[in-house]
Amino acid sequence: MPAGSYEGKTKIVSPAKSPTNVILRFKNDITALDGEKHDVIEGKGAINASISSKLFELLNRAGLPTHFIRRDGPDGIVVKKLRMLPLEVVCRNVAAGHFAKRFSTLFKIGEALSKPVVEFYLKSDELHDPLLTEDHISLLGIASDEQVETMKELTLRTNGLVSKYLDDLGIRLVDFKLEFGLDEDDRLVIGDELALDSMRLWDKDTGSRLDKDVYRSGKPLDDVLSVYREAYRRIVGREAP
Amino acid sequence: MPAGSYEGKTKIVSPAKSPTNVILRFKNDITALDGEKHDVIEGKGAINASISSKLFELLNRAGLPTHFIRRDGPDGIVVKKLRMLPLEVVCRNVAAGHFAKRFSTLFKIGEALSKPVVEFYLKSDELHDPLLTEDHISLLGIASDEQVETMKELTLRTNGLVSKYLDDLGIRLVDFKLEFGLDEDDRLVIGDELALDSMRLWDKDTGSRLDKDVYRSGKPLDDVLSVYREAYRRIVGREAP
Repeated sequence: MPAGSYEGKTKIVSPAKSPTNVILRFKNDITALDGEKHDVIEGKGAINASISSKLFELLNRAGLPTHFIRRDGPDGIVVKKLRMLPLEVVCRNVAAGHFAKRFSTLFKIGEALSKPVVEFYLKSDELHDPLLTEDHISLLGIASDEQVETMKELTLRTNGLVSKYLDDLGIRLVDFKLEFGLDEDDRLVIGDELALDSMRLWDKDTGSRLDKDVYRSGKPLDDVLSVYREAYRRIVGREAP
Repeated sequence: MPAGSYEGKTKIVSPAKSPTNVILRFKNDITALDGEKHDVIEGKGAINASISSKLFELLNRAGLPTHFIRRDGPDGIVVKKLRMLPLEVVCRNVAAGHFAKRFSTLFKIGEALSKPVVEFYLKSDELHDPLLTEDHISLLGIASDEQVETMKELTLRTNGLVSKYLDDLGIRLVDFKLEFGLDEDDRLVIGDELALDSMRLWDKDTGSRLDKDVYRSGKPLDDVLSVYREAYRRIVGREAP
């Protein structure tokens, strides 16, 4: 690992040539249950790097502020250095996962929501990423009310763009997670990744899962890799390497 | 129980003389853990009826819309009939209870919050009263954004009035829960109760508990009754009957 690097569960952050940038390298590690479940799948890092690049390029072209600058080898991307906020911003179009459990008597899994919902969670494995209200975010001093509004707006615009893009490929964007950071001008910028570990993607016709839920549900690692390669093929538009 | 009555865990709602009113009778039942823990304490109903009356009168005098009209015997109150919203609106001044657990690494129990926080929970024993964001409330069709703002404002005004009143009696208002309903003109009105089962009250000097936490923590029922009588004495201003 290069000097001055920081290693997370699924990515390594290293210095880039320009001091205002960093390199994000996507590891082959895959984790679930707050890191309790952990495996390594050869090729997974490159797949998520490619999908993130493709979707960040889509957002950049539409004028949304993302940290993405360019690819860097098969499993890396060069991004703007940000001061990350300790939030996971989740956008949901369809009842699934945590939301479907929380409201199990009110929504069936797979039920379309009447409008997209944006939720904020505190990024804290120790506290199991608790749901936050806007009052909590302000009380914890994480972001101002205005910044919360900006994040909601950027998340909904991301949802519109990515939903449309995937829908044309026969994929339903069920939900996804964004992380935000502040750049040197204190501007909110979409950071982290937009890939198969942080989105729920269902085949529009069959409902089959094209994302990390295949791993969460305990499928063999070979099947997980097949699903990741299939998602890559559809989203990036060529066979996975 | 009178004909046309409805019995809840701790109260009975019966028709009143006027069709726009109902009578709330406070039972001696005390429950915790979504109703799993349950006991009966002679005199508890009358204590909560008196404390609710005292505090609702305080709010009415200040011009806040509450359902309270008048006392009705030792354990009853006559109130406006409301269509209740399935929400528990919690206001917190100090970290305690559910909040202190949720954010255990960030706040100590008893730590004063830098500003009062208002939270909304879905009233559902089956789902264990999950925390709701404002987006959830709108998605579930429970209340409009404007109604949510009104409830927050009324809750904060209640907090100001009741905190001041109790502070003068040597009591710290740690947190409390309100429930809201709509009257015949679709106006939001504070309903339910404001008593020892729905507030956390700590002695300002000693920190000793003057509320239902004494029961939750497993103290003998005689001790629970002593604490309820002590709170009555201070809040109502005379010995409990």
